[in-house]
Amino acid sequence: MIRRIPGAVATRSRAVIANGILTTVATSPNKSDSMYEQVQGALAAIDKNLADGGTGKAQIVTAICYCADMSRKPELNKAWDEWVDVANIPMRAVLGVALENKDLIEIVVTATV
Amino acid sequence: MIRRIPGAVATRSRAVIANGILTTVATSPNKSDSMYEQVQGALAAIDKNLADGGTGKAQIVTAICYCADMSRKPELNKAWDEWVDVANIPMRAVLGVALENKDLIEIVVTATV
Amino acid sequence: MIRRIPGAVATRSRAVIANGILTTVATSPNKSDSMYEQVQGALAAIDKNLADGGTGKAQIVTAICYCADMSRKPELNKAWDEWVDVANIPMRAVLGVALENKDLIEIVVTATV
Repeated sequence: MIRRIPGAVATRSRAVIANGILTTVATSPNKSDSMYEQVQGALAAIDKNLADGGTGKAQIVTAICYCADMSRKPELNKAWDEWVDVANIPMRAVLGVALENKDLIEIVVTATV
Repeated sequence: MIRRIPGAVATRSRAVIANGILTTVATSPNKSDSMYEQVQGALAAIDKNLADGGTGKAQIVTAICYCADMSRKPELNKAWDEWVDVANIPMRAVLGVALENKDLIEIVVTATV
Repeated sequence: MIRRIPGAVATRSRAVIANGILTTVATSPNKSDSMYEQVQGALAAIDKNLADGGTGKAQIVTAICYCADMSRKPELNKAWDEWVDVANIPMRAVLGVALENKDLIEIVVTATV
């Protein structure tokens, strides 16, 4: 049984639950020039997607952060460290990639449900 | 129990099934200059890998699309929208990365089995 | 139930086990100028993380290799081919991305536990 949580675009889900694991993706709704603010925005969207799937930050397993400017990774780390549940720390990887338009960050998270 | 579906290269599988989830990777066999045609080719290869693993498009959970030229993402979206099962939409992320040789697209998909 | 294996940084785990799957990430502790040596270093770190989680090379499901210089992928392949368990071959993808500082390779692996 697969549960799908639709997003803004008809051909993609913002989260999918299968075999007890939710996987979700988010960018920042706010296309600020600040990496710090976009990472905050993307993590807030992740929080909402986790909640909509019946789970939350403490149950995150992994986070893959796709970052459009690795020179600004310290800003990403600051937003991450303020947000993360330090009692339940995910595995995390940060990779420098090209993103669309004004996106500075895209984050894919898995969590148990 | 892990089931492995060998690929063209002896040291990598094109799909692996574990704990009820198949994960598969494909590029396009046709190294066309067209992003649209390569995405079609990669998605057809994904279809074959899913079928070989006993699953199919309706059971896809996630798709991560690694794209060698983000300026051509509209072509990727067109091929995706024509291919996707709109009754069962996956979570999808598209990331701009460097690929090998003439590859324009590489796609990693998970599906329930 | 989620089991987390802490890493060097307080806000990230180097491996997490959930629903029978361990996911782990590693770079090379040795920041050599050689892609071959860094891939060896990262794979040795993966071996340790797998062992710390009670699993090992034969149970790997997938490996995503993030490579900072795709022109040196042959060196990556050499280290991979020497290391991989040919009786139990993972699905593998290699993507060219930007990494931090002197990192040439970052690898994310999943394995059954």
